[in-house]
Amino acid sequence: MADNKKMVEAITSMDVDFAQWYTDVVKKAELVDYTSVKGCMVIKPAGYAIWELIQKQLDARFKETGVENVYLPMFIPESLLQKEKDHVEGFAPEVAWVTHGGMQPLQERMCVRPTSETLFCDFYANDIQSYRDLPKVYNQWCSVVRWEKETRPFLRSREFLWQEGHTAHATAEDAEARTVQMLNLYADFCEEVLAIPVIKGQKTEKEKFAGALATYTIEALMHDGKALQSGTSHNFGDGFAKAFGIQYTDKDNTLKHVHQTSWGMTTRLIGAIIMVHGDNEGLVLPPRVAPTQVCIVPIMQKKEGVLDKAYELRDLLKSNFRVKVDDSDKSPGFKFAEAEMRGYPVRVEIGPKDIEAGKCVIVRRDTREKIEVALGDLEAKVGEILETMQVEMLERARAHREEHTYVAKNFDEFQRTFAEKTGFVKAMWCGEQTCEDVIKEKLSVTSRCMPFQQEQISDTCVCCGRPAKKMVYWGKAY
Amino acid sequence: MADNKKMVEAITSMDVDFAQWYTDVVKKAELVDYTSVKGCMVIKPAGYAIWELIQKQLDARFKETGVENVYLPMFIPESLLQKEKDHVEGFAPEVAWVTHGGMQPLQERMCVRPTSETLFCDFYANDIQSYRDLPKVYNQWCSVVRWEKETRPFLRSREFLWQEGHTAHATAEDAEARTVQMLNLYADFCEEVLAIPVIKGQKTEKEKFAGALATYTIEALMHDGKALQSGTSHNFGDGFAKAFGIQYTDKDNTLKHVHQTSWGMTTRLIGAIIMVHGDNEGLVLPPRVAPTQVCIVPIMQKKEGVLDKAYELRDLLKSNFRVKVDDSDKSPGFKFAEAEMRGYPVRVEIGPKDIEAGKCVIVRRDTREKIEVALGDLEAKVGEILETMQVEMLERARAHREEHTYVAKNFDEFQRTFAEKTGFVKAMWCGEQTCEDVIKEKLSVTSRCMPFQQEQISDTCVCCGRPAKKMVYWGKAY
Repeated sequence: MADNKKMVEAITSMDVDFAQWYTDVVKKAELVDYTSVKGCMVIKPAGYAIWELIQKQLDARFKETGVENVYLPMFIPESLLQKEKDHVEGFAPEVAWVTHGGMQPLQERMCVRPTSETLFCDFYANDIQSYRDLPKVYNQWCSVVRWEKETRPFLRSREFLWQEGHTAHATAEDAEARTVQMLNLYADFCEEVLAIPVIKGQKTEKEKFAGALATYTIEALMHDGKALQSGTSHNFGDGFAKAFGIQYTDKDNTLKHVHQTSWGMTTRLIGAIIMVHGDNEGLVLPPRVAPTQVCIVPIMQKKEGVLDKAYELRDLLKSNFRVKVDDSDKSPGFKFAEAEMRGYPVRVEIGPKDIEAGKCVIVRRDTREKIEVALGDLEAKVGEILETMQVEMLERARAHREEHTYVAKNFDEFQRTFAEKTGFVKAMWCGEQTCEDVIKEKLSVTSRCMPFQQEQISDTCVCCGRPAKKMVYWGKAY
Repeated sequence: MADNKKMVEAITSMDVDFAQWYTDVVKKAELVDYTSVKGCMVIKPAGYAIWELIQKQLDARFKETGVENVYLPMFIPESLLQKEKDHVEGFAPEVAWVTHGGMQPLQERMCVRPTSETLFCDFYANDIQSYRDLPKVYNQWCSVVRWEKETRPFLRSREFLWQEGHTAHATAEDAEARTVQMLNLYADFCEEVLAIPVIKGQKTEKEKFAGALATYTIEALMHDGKALQSGTSHNFGDGFAKAFGIQYTDKDNTLKHVHQTSWGMTTRLIGAIIMVHGDNEGLVLPPRVAPTQVCIVPIMQKKEGVLDKAYELRDLLKSNFRVKVDDSDKSPGFKFAEAEMRGYPVRVEIGPKDIEAGKCVIVRRDTREKIEVALGDLEAKVGEILETMQVEMLERARAHREEHTYVAKNFDEFQRTFAEKTGFVKAMWCGEQTCEDVIKEKLSVTSRCMPFQQEQISDTCVCCGRPAKKMVYWGKAY
């Protein structure tokens, strides 16, 4: 019990200091560690295993839609980065430059990819000749570098892991359809796998990706009421194709430019999982991305037969679940606290008395509910609890978002809501960037997206009072 | 038939020019493409899918032995790289240097990792405190950069993909055991999955890894008689631990240095697959790493029912095999040649006459044997052929290696063998580097390894005639 207390005390309460709570959780749950490389992190086994489960399930969904994986170089020659004007303006200020190879200065410096549009374009310009070569639906899993000044584990770091899909299509319609298809895939993945509900919508001109015609986004609400952009999908039209000369001969024998898209999700999703589901005991992992779904804690493990029984239960469960026995020499109280800190969805407690009575105790991580189960029912019960938990975690997150989504009809309401509440505010907008700028300056919030599901909150822009064009979700964002 | 011919003519015969044959195959089989980034390659879908199958099966074997995956930064500050003297001397001449982040020059330049020993050491120095923290058995899948002057796809490129395992142990014995365990795992993987037989042994002092106490290697023989180092496992002793101050408190309460290992395999393995199994028709993929194991080619596919039948067979096979239908508008002859070029282990031909007779034709890629099969037996027969092929490909590669492994008792024999033959030569060695240097200068061959399975070829060094200490495999290497 003393041990237990010590461990729990080490975390800041999320109600006292959410940012510190986050830092405590990523460290105490052993997801990441800091390094001698400023702004970069080590992703430790507990963190990387979550990423592997994300990768595996996302990649399977990609492949069902015809995506093929490739690998392109990590370096981009400066002249290549500069080919598309908006793109280079967006990224040049935050790239890392390689100037020497071996002992020699390079003839042309190269940046470490911040994103690979330019490399894919350079590749496609050679690889695409005919309508028969289309569509190209390629993706790569890799790391990218952006020289951020302020960094936070998973949320913003100088190097992060992601996937970047880059596609080329014969027509504008095909490109638009793929852009939307991937956004929907991302949204379904977040809800079904990560138990994180998202708002689907379009970014404004001000917030869209450098070089894109349109950027679609999924926006999630964290426990502290701040938004997290969780995935984006961009339609480039033929802008990059014209800059890079990516043309194909169509069936009618004329030369046409391709239409392109790109889309990405990153290790930031792990930050979202922490901030949507975590609590004051630590991490709470949705069962589908929990590297350990069931942690068996033997009680009085030195008593004969206890450890054997624990291993027996593990062997029973392991064909259907990711399970482990905590047979370390720590006290049960410490093990409970540690299992909670690490967010294992289900803890199974088994001691001499339980064995005698032919039962064990299951503890659900999210509700901390204790359930006595006959050993013969354990496997079925664990499966049932994991399913229920996956569903209820999504429902709770959705309810939290609904409770923290407000409506503002005029600037006064708008300002008051952000002063008093944390969360999303839905308000109308005239479509002018000047209003976004004013809102950002006065309220420190940004337009998160123009949701696909529009509502008519009022007829006039919440900022300038002119006729409104779009309903927008506004919020503070990570 | 004309198409067929055209495609085959485009490859150089391996007997005429092996290097050109290799280049033709990687390009024609669409494994890689060149890029605007000198010395770096694009790994295209057909190539990357092989790497994914290697990764998946190797990673599963790792995890069975307790390996956990992590991710460390891609940058190494110069001061960190310099901490271990031999290591920096080995790698500094061939690293890429990042000197600017965003618009600012860096205070300290950083290299892009050529390998991550120094980063793991820096991490372990913080992460390891007690004997309870040991062993650490971590691995990462990533890309690394070495600024090579001459590059060849898969075999030597400025950036390549690999896995690098880095472990820390309480005792020298534990470290040695892990080093050998991983070498054995690599050897089994090569033989069982890639159908490539390997010689297991130790590198000489001259050839060992920069900073290692001992380097173990697996060496494979390519079709042209040149050797390819296919995986290495290093025992570092406590050298890095002392340079980086990695200490733990042991059970007896004294402070001790850890003992470390590292081990890696790379995308070079794809080069090995090509050069061990390929032939003048192109790539031949071992079934276990073939992204497409079965390619169904419909004959007269415009005739009613042919394509439907092809899809029906695909649906029948797809639960157990990686299968596709080539329903493109190319001629059957072209499809056959393309399927051979890409190395699909099994081709299934099905046309109107076959359908009428309730049969189809299976063609094995390695032997090009044609087998008529009743449609009802197709699934079983495909499984049987893939199994047989996997086994026979290994046997053929082993027979090829045996035929190209020679013995030399004195320098004259040694010189004559390398003048007349291509392959491995087994010969005795005194253990002095001067003899290795002489042999390299006069014969242009290097010591590949001191095999674990030693034989007594003679009593004296093949070079200097002094008493021999070790039997060594010698050869030209990639």
